[in-house]
Amino acid sequence: MRGRRQVLRAAVAGAVAAGATAVTAGTGTAGAAAGSGAGERGGRARRRIGILLYDRMTLLDAVGPAEVLSRLPDTSVSLIGRRRGEVRGDTGHGALVADLRTEDVDRLDVLLVPGGSGAGATAVVRHEPTMRWIRHIDARTTWTTSVCTGSLILAHAGLLRGREATTYWSAKDLLAPHGAVYVPRRWVRSGKYVTAAGVSAGIDMGLWLTAALTDDTTAQAVQLALEYDPQPPFDTGSPDKAGPELQRLALELVARSQR
Amino acid sequence: MRGRRQVLRAAVAGAVAAGATAVTAGTGTAGAAAGSGAGERGGRARRRIGILLYDRMTLLDAVGPAEVLSRLPDTSVSLIGRRRGEVRGDTGHGALVADLRTEDVDRLDVLLVPGGSGAGATAVVRHEPTMRWIRHIDARTTWTTSVCTGSLILAHAGLLRGREATTYWSAKDLLAPHGAVYVPRRWVRSGKYVTAAGVSAGIDMGLWLTAALTDDTTAQAVQLALEYDPQPPFDTGSPDKAGPELQRLALELVARSQR
Repeated sequence: MRGRRQVLRAAVAGAVAAGATAVTAGTGTAGAAAGSGAGERGGRARRRIGILLYDRMTLLDAVGPAEVLSRLPDTSVSLIGRRRGEVRGDTGHGALVADLRTEDVDRLDVLLVPGGSGAGATAVVRHEPTMRWIRHIDARTTWTTSVCTGSLILAHAGLLRGREATTYWSAKDLLAPHGAVYVPRRWVRSGKYVTAAGVSAGIDMGLWLTAALTDDTTAQAVQLALEYDPQPPFDTGSPDKAGPELQRLALELVARSQR
Repeated sequence: MRGRRQVLRAAVAGAVAAGATAVTAGTGTAGAAAGSGAGERGGRARRRIGILLYDRMTLLDAVGPAEVLSRLPDTSVSLIGRRRGEVRGDTGHGALVADLRTEDVDRLDVLLVPGGSGAGATAVVRHEPTMRWIRHIDARTTWTTSVCTGSLILAHAGLLRGREATTYWSAKDLLAPHGAVYVPRRWVRSGKYVTAAGVSAGIDMGLWLTAALTDDTTAQAVQLALEYDPQPPFDTGSPDKAGPELQRLALELVARSQR
């Protein structure tokens, strides 16, 4: 027990506390290690998680779960696009970097498909190579997951037929045409498929997934690592809490902000 | 009133519902508009918000508030780095794109400094041109803000002297040497300075800031736009709720995940 405490203390001292202290004391060793991208880490990782990026996705849909899952031990989280490089979000105000191309990735333990603008998601479902890749990867995943309107992409790929699922609140009627049954929950598990509600729900789903991939204790520690003790200043995060006027205003803000 | 409803309905039909329907029906017009980066939008925006990116920052610290703030009307949110292009996060598993260089940005209404690994934050406070830029921008901001250990960077710049502030829970002792008084709250306002606690706290702070920049109704609608109705599967998001063993495990996971 003493040995373990020492290791923990060393880890803390080595990376968090000492690093942060260095901000104050000016004794850190910035830039010591060369950057290691997700691609390089993939070979050593026990568990491979891949997040599909596409033009006009919603950045937080991808980054929320990525932030959670990238804290798991022996795990690689890869951002995967049609091409390597910049993939711009739906507002145009920010972009993520795809480190791998879909054609470079043959197998994942966990696939996550974020949501995006209507135009963004439409372009994905019309791009047959990407849809083929989603089905190919899904065939061997442990978990296939989505955030927000990402579930519409999974549904379009035929993966949610006969399953309960969720999606962005204003898109709830769009699952049924693909044989999925909409359930208004923060995240919905059906077999190996886990769909999360809109945007920020990916963080909650990511913590649930963390527990499923590891154990409750690790997931609880990851929650603390992200200091995820939510205290929003309002309580209008779901359509029924917000009411019809705020629903209309929210959709107007989304429409105006998307390119 | 009827006119306004029609506009709202058109906005909804035009972008969210119709776009999402197009995923199902295949009638969308993906790729119609050329991408418009934050830089291009800056000229037209009434309100300019800038987020400083740096090597080994924590991705969610930047993307959480960016997602919130990019939904505000007439607002540009720019990701700003020492150089344009890829800026990799602290785990190495993902990167954001800086659209502007610090030397291109002379004025912002809101500056946000995210947190990062000890090495990442240390490199920032040692890079005198970046610290000069932070002080220069701060001189004319309406709000100067931070997430997580970003407050240590603001403190190091001398901006939090004599002020109450918060930071990542394990770094709480590191504000005092710079004359700031640590307060264990989700976010802390002191004059025009608003500091948020660790990582995910930037979302809560972003909503508060949205209300300060616009009004409560708009902020409530943005909360719904992000479907931010948090339901974490555990209740271990603060150090006192988690207890000492989870604190040690959390810091170990952070240390192991950071490059």
